[in-house]
Amino acid sequence: MSSKPSPVSPLAPTTYPDLPPVAGIRLATAQAGIRYSGRTDVLYVGLEPGTRAAGVFTRSKCPSAPVDWCRDALANGSARALVVNSGNANAFTGRLGREAVALTAKIAAEAAGCAEDEVYIASTGVIGEPLPAERFEGVLADCVGRAQDGAAAWTEAARAIMTTDTFPKLATREATIGGTSVRINGIAKGAGMIAPDMATMLAFVFTDAALSRGAAQALLAQGANDSFNCVTVDGDTSTSDTLMLFATGKAGNAEVARADDPALAGFKAALDDLLIELAQLVARDGEGARKFVTVKVGGAESDASAHRIALSIANSPLVKTAVAGEDANWGRVVMAVGKAGEPADRDRLAIWFGDVRVAVDGARDPSYSEEAASDVMRRPEVEIRVDLGLGTGKARVWTCDLTKGYIEINGDYRS
Amino acid sequence: MSSKPSPVSPLAPTTYPDLPPVAGIRLATAQAGIRYSGRTDVLYVGLEPGTRAAGVFTRSKCPSAPVDWCRDALANGSARALVVNSGNANAFTGRLGREAVALTAKIAAEAAGCAEDEVYIASTGVIGEPLPAERFEGVLADCVGRAQDGAAAWTEAARAIMTTDTFPKLATREATIGGTSVRINGIAKGAGMIAPDMATMLAFVFTDAALSRGAAQALLAQGANDSFNCVTVDGDTSTSDTLMLFATGKAGNAEVARADDPALAGFKAALDDLLIELAQLVARDGEGARKFVTVKVGGAESDASAHRIALSIANSPLVKTAVAGEDANWGRVVMAVGKAGEPADRDRLAIWFGDVRVAVDGARDPSYSEEAASDVMRRPEVEIRVDLGLGTGKARVWTCDLTKGYIEINGDYRS
Repeated sequence: MSSKPSPVSPLAPTTYPDLPPVAGIRLATAQAGIRYSGRTDVLYVGLEPGTRAAGVFTRSKCPSAPVDWCRDALANGSARALVVNSGNANAFTGRLGREAVALTAKIAAEAAGCAEDEVYIASTGVIGEPLPAERFEGVLADCVGRAQDGAAAWTEAARAIMTTDTFPKLATREATIGGTSVRINGIAKGAGMIAPDMATMLAFVFTDAALSRGAAQALLAQGANDSFNCVTVDGDTSTSDTLMLFATGKAGNAEVARADDPALAGFKAALDDLLIELAQLVARDGEGARKFVTVKVGGAESDASAHRIALSIANSPLVKTAVAGEDANWGRVVMAVGKAGEPADRDRLAIWFGDVRVAVDGARDPSYSEEAASDVMRRPEVEIRVDLGLGTGKARVWTCDLTKGYIEINGDYRS
Repeated sequence: MSSKPSPVSPLAPTTYPDLPPVAGIRLATAQAGIRYSGRTDVLYVGLEPGTRAAGVFTRSKCPSAPVDWCRDALANGSARALVVNSGNANAFTGRLGREAVALTAKIAAEAAGCAEDEVYIASTGVIGEPLPAERFEGVLADCVGRAQDGAAAWTEAARAIMTTDTFPKLATREATIGGTSVRINGIAKGAGMIAPDMATMLAFVFTDAALSRGAAQALLAQGANDSFNCVTVDGDTSTSDTLMLFATGKAGNAEVARADDPALAGFKAALDDLLIELAQLVARDGEGARKFVTVKVGGAESDASAHRIALSIANSPLVKTAVAGEDANWGRVVMAVGKAGEPADRDRLAIWFGDVRVAVDGARDPSYSEEAASDVMRRPEVEIRVDLGLGTGKARVWTCDLTKGYIEINGDYRS
């Protein structure tokens, strides 16, 4: 299969950031010929000794072989290499799948000169096809020799892990820990089978900060809750969702042991912000997306209840097609609130599209202007806001519209 | 809005049954000009004195005003008239909505010569617009005068309640109770915002059998579980879902008090069968449907678990688009099993498309023929079967594929 020449999402950023080097990280990409032709499909990331790893993974009951591998490797927690391939998810591949990750780890460990359980592996692409891991032979050793830390290497890394993505997803932040400047770079890929929990299929974050394993894991898990766990494209949860954080410790700050240490406040804020940016980029590149949608729910009985209602709205095919049709169809928002099964009182509901209140007290807003609402719906970014009028619980999630493009991409993915 | 001239679903029955008269039931339709022009939009059903009513309704937390009305009226349980309109759901219409059902009941009660709480009301169509119930004035009285019991009246009834449906949905059965022949007629409409529980937006079943209120309610609730609660089009639950059973008692059988009375065995079987036929017709007319899909799950830890997994598969946009693309993409079935959150062991899973086993023991079936699977996918009716290999729980649900037609219909519904 050659990757389909899809036009870039209209919601793509107009420019991509140049990512600065992160001390202790070097990257290289290659064409291993896993599935695609004429494009890179392998990313190798070399990590200096002392790098700590943290990870958050799909909650699918049928996770991919690489997810199983990473979960096991995290028991060690030391990291020297990350290998990511696109084109084949190595999911639901049984014994062959386990053999493929083991072989990948062996090849990478030999190339990087580390232990096999210091290698992390992620795969994305088609499910159920055996992964020909022997194709990494030679390729990864070559990557080790070529690995770079410049901006071009980061951009190439983000491109190599794309599947149906129409643009590479990169973000960078700076922070200080105890007076020492640290950097955080992140890359991610979508673009379908995107739902909490986890949302993105693959995202990798790298920092030169020195963090304990516990602090890294806690920061990542907390950050995921308000970012990747708040984005949905189609409500379908991947078998392969992987979010990892690698901290090389090369910035020179004194290692911080606990995530709630005040010394990490600035770092945590920067990390959270970067995770949100990456998560939003995934929604902006949702398959077939023409509109970026923010759903905000307030006045719920609890934050958790608000979150479930927001996801019910964001996952509703009828709401998403209405947005695609630029139709301020708030009746479908009512429907989605009602079907969430959460506490709601029809007669206290209020609904806004952008800043136009279209419904209040359980009925159409008497002063509602169809024209003003239509203006909102024509924009590339649409906010849907619901106030339940019951309590103080709130949540916000991001999604995109549901268009014929989604059907086109997914009705003809394998062939 | 004029109703869109959509071609009839390719999954429609080739012929529609002629429904026989049901003693005690007379029907008439009219054009009240609620929303559509050039087509009927009101159904009036006159019910002879002594008719008992039973109902099962949406579990939405934001039900429509007619659903609230019917739930209240069922406390009485005696029925003399049913009024159904299409074009406007009278949902999320606040005080105006309550006034509209009250006015409808008043007009119908005067026309039929009965009490207002003997009138049942259902509405389907757009949400959030006030229903101009005053347009029923004169119309319903005229219907009372014109009501018929012939086959044409039944077909017209099924047509008057359609919204985005492309064909009328009718079914009929016969049974005996204690040696007395009884008839059961049913009509239903879909065709989007279809998900358990309930599945169909509106379905009405009429019988001349004499049943106690308790027996009627129990039979209907049980029957709904294995029919309408097993069909999904888009996972979106309507605010208006209504399934009602009216039993006139005019067949002359001795009234049966309890649903589990052996005298009702044949009637129950016939009713269940009719409900399944109607539910399947709803899936066959799912918005944009080109394929009718049966999902069977076996080997689950319980029937309830199997049901949730089957719905996860049937509601997955990625599975549904794969079916639309005639792609035997069983990896997406694995994904949908995994995301259901129910007990599942990846390495025991087996998956079939039709009679072609494509996966076994957590990997591709070694003897799997892509060609044979493709043959199955090209048919208009596709069965997806999953064996979890864990226990004896099983379930089956019906759905349809997800096509560009769905997007087209729903991206431009209100305008």
